[in-house]
Amino acid sequence: MIKVKNKINIGVVGFGTIGSSVVKLLLERRRLFRDRTGIDLNLMFVCDKDLRSKRSVSVPKKMLTRSVDKVIRHPDIDVVVELIGGVHPAKEIITKALSAGKHVVTANKLLLAVEGEAIFKKAEEAGREIFFEASVAGGVPIIKAIREGLSANTFYNIIGILNGTSNYILSRMSGEGATFKAALKEAQSSGYAESDPSLDIKGLDSAHKLAILSLLGFGKKVGMKDIYVEGIEKISPVDIQYARDWGYTVKPLAIAKREGNQLSLRVHPTLLLSKYILSSVSGAYNAISIDADLVGKQVFYGQGAGKLPTGSAVISDIMDTASAIIYGKKSSRFIAAKRAEIKKIKKMDDVRTRYYVHFSAIDRPGVLAKISGILGSNNISISSVVQKERREAHVVPIVMLTHEAREKDMQSALKKINGLATIKRKSVLLRLEG
Amino acid sequence: MIKVKNKINIGVVGFGTIGSSVVKLLLERRRLFRDRTGIDLNLMFVCDKDLRSKRSVSVPKKMLTRSVDKVIRHPDIDVVVELIGGVHPAKEIITKALSAGKHVVTANKLLLAVEGEAIFKKAEEAGREIFFEASVAGGVPIIKAIREGLSANTFYNIIGILNGTSNYILSRMSGEGATFKAALKEAQSSGYAESDPSLDIKGLDSAHKLAILSLLGFGKKVGMKDIYVEGIEKISPVDIQYARDWGYTVKPLAIAKREGNQLSLRVHPTLLLSKYILSSVSGAYNAISIDADLVGKQVFYGQGAGKLPTGSAVISDIMDTASAIIYGKKSSRFIAAKRAEIKKIKKMDDVRTRYYVHFSAIDRPGVLAKISGILGSNNISISSVVQKERREAHVVPIVMLTHEAREKDMQSALKKINGLATIKRKSVLLRLEG
Repeated sequence: MIKVKNKINIGVVGFGTIGSSVVKLLLERRRLFRDRTGIDLNLMFVCDKDLRSKRSVSVPKKMLTRSVDKVIRHPDIDVVVELIGGVHPAKEIITKALSAGKHVVTANKLLLAVEGEAIFKKAEEAGREIFFEASVAGGVPIIKAIREGLSANTFYNIIGILNGTSNYILSRMSGEGATFKAALKEAQSSGYAESDPSLDIKGLDSAHKLAILSLLGFGKKVGMKDIYVEGIEKISPVDIQYARDWGYTVKPLAIAKREGNQLSLRVHPTLLLSKYILSSVSGAYNAISIDADLVGKQVFYGQGAGKLPTGSAVISDIMDTASAIIYGKKSSRFIAAKRAEIKKIKKMDDVRTRYYVHFSAIDRPGVLAKISGILGSNNISISSVVQKERREAHVVPIVMLTHEAREKDMQSALKKINGLATIKRKSVLLRLEG
Repeated sequence: MIKVKNKINIGVVGFGTIGSSVVKLLLERRRLFRDRTGIDLNLMFVCDKDLRSKRSVSVPKKMLTRSVDKVIRHPDIDVVVELIGGVHPAKEIITKALSAGKHVVTANKLLLAVEGEAIFKKAEEAGREIFFEASVAGGVPIIKAIREGLSANTFYNIIGILNGTSNYILSRMSGEGATFKAALKEAQSSGYAESDPSLDIKGLDSAHKLAILSLLGFGKKVGMKDIYVEGIEKISPVDIQYARDWGYTVKPLAIAKREGNQLSLRVHPTLLLSKYILSSVSGAYNAISIDADLVGKQVFYGQGAGKLPTGSAVISDIMDTASAIIYGKKSSRFIAAKRAEIKKIKKMDDVRTRYYVHFSAIDRPGVLAKISGILGSNNISISSVVQKERREAHVVPIVMLTHEAREKDMQSALKKINGLATIKRKSVLLRLEG
């Protein structure tokens, strides 16, 4: 057995689902973790406003406190683990902890997405570590992979299924032909979706995570306004079926792509060739595909949420912090470092991609000619088209895939087409990868 | 830009394909790596017996040397990067380097598989680091993931496609119905297989990598005699086709499974349900699936060989070593630490798994009854059976899947069945996962 060299004192702030899981692991596996790291990870405080609710773990009374300041200011505390989520007061807690000379571990994706730069700067000034593996893809060690494992590479793109709720819903719609509403309801009753699921299904949660990955992978600070975001609410089973007929699966993707010295960032449901590995990622699972100059394509897959996977990531961060404290290593390299020469964020209008479009048109001679004429005059060429049913003078679906085109051109073409008298419903536009 | 705090002097021993790639990266990306790590990675020596052959990179003459001792003994050298491969003299070079107080980075899977324990012990005694990310799955940061990212977990199993050559061959047989011989030839002409491919196709290369992963994931020293190894040479297109009819893909798997306090270890072609992610890993790609108590199932996918992916892993290790030197962190935690309470290696005879069996029997009444009788009396029950053609009194294929059975029972049943007068060729036995 490795001799115990030292002890690290830990204060956990936030005693909710994730907090309870981390506390439980620290209490129950203390000896195992000591054997593995040579460091005693000593839980000293558990802090929450609410100390009355029942938790899945029982904690010695002397550890419990309602006072964040007591934790942050205690001279023996080495690491503050922030697990309350949200921007405020999490930001203030982390900032104060860093100022007080504490190292910080957090799982707070929202905070890092919107205030990451300020917080990383603060940590650097304070000469303290901040680790945040649990903020993206739960238990999958993707942040460590990008910061350390792939540190010799220049990245071309990062494409992820980063939101388990959206992926669960689209998987159910795909597998069972469920409607969006039914699949959402099922996700809620199975615990895969919150009662207010809007952050998830509208793509914002994915955008937060994409901002974090982009900062690490491309060295570019990314604000929410830099990311084009579209949710999955408008996807219907029929579009999933049409996509499948062409060999595609509809997936909720978050995409960061380097094009020369520009970076394009977008979150939207996407048609993906079914043979690609990300297409086989179903249910509440997450996966991140990375394309980089040395390693080529890599994929990391696993559970993106849940108390145990998230707890695993938080503990790994605590171990890294402990290792940094005891052995003196600075690990926050690469956060501020240049990765690629990204000069600016590409405007969504200028993004070029392939499209799937579903028009609802009255079946009348010349309709298709009219539509393709408008597309053509906007520099959009069609790669496949299918008119799904034929019923003269009735509304029928016309679906097509296009070659690569510019978003702005597609949007203005669509506006014109939607204004045609023969078009009876707003056309469905989806983007396509691969 | 991060201020340069310090410089690390590197000696690369072995100027072959991988060596050239690492040297090239160190020379061409020196500034980029310094920006990222804050440390100047200074290539000081490149050592090889042969300094005449043409390489893909040109190296200043003063860096080149034929003398390993000159590199190892030089007081300014901090890190020795061993890239010559093979057991001898690589072992002696690494041991001497550690004794001389140098840190070591190596890509040598064979050496670590057979001499890993001695080398890790030596590194610990010397108080020096040894990193070896490139030894398994090329550029995929799987070793870092197991040692650091998943360090809070207890592992249930590690299942990998660890040999790109075998996977390429089986993929070609699967996709194009090529024979083993034709697929091997193609792999050789495309550069995916060596002129002597036996280490790859016989499963030994996978076994070496499995030994390394098992030591890290289960804390158990594993010798080659502990691993049951079967190559892919006997796979025929017809068995791949029959497997597919049942929804399975044949993959070259390396499997380490914890069962209670025992660990079973085997490398063999395996039928895998086609819906599993590992089934979609084709061509020369590698993938590792891990099942662990906190994170559940994770998969890591990428190029398992090639000079650039391997170079990426070696550079990441050099950066970790540099970081350990400059910032003082000890990272070799977990190598010797207990992970699970593995008491012993399970004998292959005692392993329980499902099977695919292909009998070549004369189509005569009672043949199937005879076969299933022998299976039944050996505690093996059949889950599906198909007689592929019916030609009375001719040799026809009878293929079946069994429920879980003990290897020893299966082997003795097979021996009896192969001895029947109606069985006209040696039966094909494959194992099945999932």
